[in-house]
Amino acid sequence: MSTAPVRFWERTHNNGELRESDGDATVTLNGWVDRRRNLGALLFVDLRDRYGKTQVLFDPDVLGDEQYNVAKSLRDEFVISVQGTVRVRRGKEAGKGDTGAVEILATKLMLVTRSKPLPIVLEGKEQAGEELRLKYRYLDLRRQDLQRKMIMRHKVDLATRAYFDERDFLNVETPVLTKSTPEGARDYLVPSRVHPGEFYALPQSPQIFKQILMLSGYDKYMQIVRCFRDEDLRADRQPEFTQVDIEMAFASQDVLFPLIEEWVAQLWRDFKGVEVSTPIARMTYADAMEQYGVDRPDRRFTLKLSTISDLLEGNEGAPFTAANALEDGTIKALFVPGDVTRMSRKVLDGYTTLVRSFGLGGLLWGKVTGDSASGAAGKFLSAEELASVRARFAELNGHDASEDGVLMICAGKTKSVNDALSRLRLKIGQDLSLYEEGTFEFVWVVDFPMFDWNEDEERWDPTHHPFTSPLPGHDGLLETDPGAALSDAYDLCCNGLELGGGSIRIHDPEMQARAFRAIGLTDEQAEHKFGFLLEALSYGTPPHGGMAFGLDRIVMLLAGTDAIRDVIAFPKTQRASCLMTTAPSTVDLPQLEELHLWPVPVAGLAAQGEDETLDGRG
Amino acid sequence: MSTAPVRFWERTHNNGELRESDGDATVTLNGWVDRRRNLGALLFVDLRDRYGKTQVLFDPDVLGDEQYNVAKSLRDEFVISVQGTVRVRRGKEAGKGDTGAVEILATKLMLVTRSKPLPIVLEGKEQAGEELRLKYRYLDLRRQDLQRKMIMRHKVDLATRAYFDERDFLNVETPVLTKSTPEGARDYLVPSRVHPGEFYALPQSPQIFKQILMLSGYDKYMQIVRCFRDEDLRADRQPEFTQVDIEMAFASQDVLFPLIEEWVAQLWRDFKGVEVSTPIARMTYADAMEQYGVDRPDRRFTLKLSTISDLLEGNEGAPFTAANALEDGTIKALFVPGDVTRMSRKVLDGYTTLVRSFGLGGLLWGKVTGDSASGAAGKFLSAEELASVRARFAELNGHDASEDGVLMICAGKTKSVNDALSRLRLKIGQDLSLYEEGTFEFVWVVDFPMFDWNEDEERWDPTHHPFTSPLPGHDGLLETDPGAALSDAYDLCCNGLELGGGSIRIHDPEMQARAFRAIGLTDEQAEHKFGFLLEALSYGTPPHGGMAFGLDRIVMLLAGTDAIRDVIAFPKTQRASCLMTTAPSTVDLPQLEELHLWPVPVAGLAAQGEDETLDGRG
Repeated sequence: MSTAPVRFWERTHNNGELRESDGDATVTLNGWVDRRRNLGALLFVDLRDRYGKTQVLFDPDVLGDEQYNVAKSLRDEFVISVQGTVRVRRGKEAGKGDTGAVEILATKLMLVTRSKPLPIVLEGKEQAGEELRLKYRYLDLRRQDLQRKMIMRHKVDLATRAYFDERDFLNVETPVLTKSTPEGARDYLVPSRVHPGEFYALPQSPQIFKQILMLSGYDKYMQIVRCFRDEDLRADRQPEFTQVDIEMAFASQDVLFPLIEEWVAQLWRDFKGVEVSTPIARMTYADAMEQYGVDRPDRRFTLKLSTISDLLEGNEGAPFTAANALEDGTIKALFVPGDVTRMSRKVLDGYTTLVRSFGLGGLLWGKVTGDSASGAAGKFLSAEELASVRARFAELNGHDASEDGVLMICAGKTKSVNDALSRLRLKIGQDLSLYEEGTFEFVWVVDFPMFDWNEDEERWDPTHHPFTSPLPGHDGLLETDPGAALSDAYDLCCNGLELGGGSIRIHDPEMQARAFRAIGLTDEQAEHKFGFLLEALSYGTPPHGGMAFGLDRIVMLLAGTDAIRDVIAFPKTQRASCLMTTAPSTVDLPQLEELHLWPVPVAGLAAQGEDETLDGRG
Repeated sequence: MSTAPVRFWERTHNNGELRESDGDATVTLNGWVDRRRNLGALLFVDLRDRYGKTQVLFDPDVLGDEQYNVAKSLRDEFVISVQGTVRVRRGKEAGKGDTGAVEILATKLMLVTRSKPLPIVLEGKEQAGEELRLKYRYLDLRRQDLQRKMIMRHKVDLATRAYFDERDFLNVETPVLTKSTPEGARDYLVPSRVHPGEFYALPQSPQIFKQILMLSGYDKYMQIVRCFRDEDLRADRQPEFTQVDIEMAFASQDVLFPLIEEWVAQLWRDFKGVEVSTPIARMTYADAMEQYGVDRPDRRFTLKLSTISDLLEGNEGAPFTAANALEDGTIKALFVPGDVTRMSRKVLDGYTTLVRSFGLGGLLWGKVTGDSASGAAGKFLSAEELASVRARFAELNGHDASEDGVLMICAGKTKSVNDALSRLRLKIGQDLSLYEEGTFEFVWVVDFPMFDWNEDEERWDPTHHPFTSPLPGHDGLLETDPGAALSDAYDLCCNGLELGGGSIRIHDPEMQARAFRAIGLTDEQAEHKFGFLLEALSYGTPPHGGMAFGLDRIVMLLAGTDAIRDVIAFPKTQRASCLMTTAPSTVDLPQLEELHLWPVPVAGLAAQGEDETLDGRG
């Protein structure tokens, strides 16, 4: 009901729309001044919005002097409204891009808003450092590259919702203000004003709620949901992250895996143009650890690890006897077939430094040519042992037993050996370009152990979470040999990354109570924390299971970036700060009093809190 | 890779799927035992899942004694797997519902899980009280009525996403751990472990982030997003709620309203089978307050209010002179045309009690028949005054000036009079069935004031939020007469409920600074709280605006319920508790220490915190 001055002219088209067929049309465009060329008698401006760019021509004879002076005053990132006529550009005059075939001869110009000169460069090589770009995130978000990633994220989100909706999955929203669930990380807490001394926890996952939905008969559930972990952050973690959360009743691996595989195949087809061959291979956790040293194998290249303790049984070499003397020691090797000259002494020294960083004494390497080996491997292994090791790897990796190659042996604690060799394997894969960029190798890892031994607390911790079902037939081990019990948990991995994980859950209240006992909870503690779940399970609970996928990570893979901050509009630093809004921040004392809180003065910590760096670890 | 005992048989169909055409098929079904009839020689079970019910027939001759004994042991809510043959039921044998034409003759039965007898009745009139149903929410969620509402919510969510996606709106996720924004309510705070003494706030809305996205060039944004308010809750409020959040660049009411109207029309068409006539009427805030006494008019019936102070100028009646003596007094009336015998003395006494509850002295009513009026209206009004009042209402509500009816006058403070008469108007609308259930009347309310006077703090508060643009031409009033300045804010209302609200935002940093000053922020305070926004606005910000809709409320209207807990899977009580999980709850001291917190002991409050009632106000 306003009649007063207009703020802009309503656009008839966006800047990605106009084509030759629009020639001679009268149009109105809005956008940002992207580039200017002043030819004296004429002025060209590239007008930009999310959809593209359009060249606008300002001619003083058409525009009149007053408006032409406005046009001359335009600077980068000014926002304008333009009315004009579409002109078709011919031959070499035609510009690049979809809208390059036309330009607008401006007949009217409105300067909508000015812009100060930008404090950071948006495109090109002189990009500002990450800290500055996070402070000016609102400018960095103007970069076409980031906009494309955000648009891809939007489309992946929608495609995922449509896929699961078509298969009867219901999006049910679960609470953010909820009760602590033990997912292994610290909870973010929210003090209650109404209930003094009590706290909500932000969910690490909606695990219990989705199980509740299954026993409530919702059958199939999918939510794209924010989750929270108060952890010291690694490069690819954020304090809040988005999970594609799935659960279904009457689920088994055989029901669930094909469903997930078709979804993943559809995403990779639609967003990468890549065909994922299904069914995706399955591999046990035990095999993954033996062959790749890690539970998220990168199978883009074949180099497999092998334990060779059995082949070196009589060997008296000092590194081997030392490893064998350990309670949990092993001797494990990697064989890189092919021309041994590809690996210089310097490179191998680098590899040695790498494995030492995992606490091992060193890397026992040897270049194997003809029948003999150089280096430590040559020194410590008999000809017979060398032959048997070569035969082992020839079979494992599918090459000829006589092939030359570099043998690398690690001896020491099993965990250190696996950590070092899995890392070394990836490094060699990169260094020797053993795979092509743009390939994707998926694998299911199954049959995880139920429990990991927690040395500090001297108890068994759940490997997945305490609601995970043992493999059928393994439940008897919960009381007799927890370390040997395998679970019905599974991960889907791609290129050495875990895309998602899940499990078939315990649906029997008795079994759930036994699982709580196995991780050292007394019945009283279990009742206090999970009494409502144990009770809920007792009213006719269907077998059920599900998965959770990191949406951020999936979009990273599809967008071809290894920076999680590239796929999150407003990310936080590794110290969990938003440099743009400066959150977290201090609050007024009355606010704290209302929440019945008083911050504890912690000597020395206040100063540390101000040291905001991207790469620091909190 | 497991070979051990199966937990269930994988279903071939769900319980809503089988039809006559499936006759003689061999099928496997899973589900809950919903109803049993034991005919001695035969046993019938209705098997239930989310999709429907299927009758299963157990015959000992087919099943064998052992399995038949299992069938006989079945109780309500047991979960079973059944294999069998589809049999077509003919004539009066055929049951109700989609799957009533068939039944399954069971050939194999697996008892999957048992159920204890349910502590609450799921269907029928003996439903448990709400407190018990919230404790056993997982059982209450099994009710078909609640399941239907959750499924509708899922579909409304998806339809909304599709609608805005088709119109280039991007779903961009905004942070949950963020900085306090002043939306008028208390923030929920989250203490930071890494930054001692600092806090995140949970967003009351993503207001600033969506504005940032506009100046970052994202053009159109839509998010279905959880928001948080730590308020003392009313019946239709929850501490966390879901918002359909919309923002677009180069927006005006004329651009935005048709977009919203088409979305609303589509929802009402698809989910209610109701055609919403567009364009939806617009009405100013001033007119809404005058005619309906409230800014969210229920226009399902026409009775309009009218100020009649001007018609009673010389009247010396005590109630009128008292009202005129007030600084902010008014005399306002409602006229209900038609047979006056519809309103008994008892009913009118009730109305009087109602208006008194708003702090007024009473209701001056009179039955107007022929040329005269009974009651207080007859006593205080001259024949001439009565005639002019009748003429006023005849014109306003479109009836004949000579029509009989009941006149009701309130005199007192304007706010009390409006509150009382608007409430009375709704009551009369219900009592006299002045509208049909199932009708929906939408209206835009526009031209809200920029500011409300805050008596306690003696300052102007923003009526909408401090980022709202003045109406074009009204910005000069910010400094000279803030109370007279109108804003470019608007609400969409339906049947007396606010569905959503929004505004055109301030896109000029200077204007934003002036708006902050108008609400009493010093430049230093504005810089401290919103410095990044003021800076961001200075780099070429397009005019922009948007809206936010309560998804919960929209689903309530579409589902035909007035209980918000019916459309939220896991709602909280009015004391912000989850009775199912018992959140909030106490946490371990080490957790608090790590967060640098120490709860303040508050005398008397701890005991109060334990008094958990649904209807109490915290």
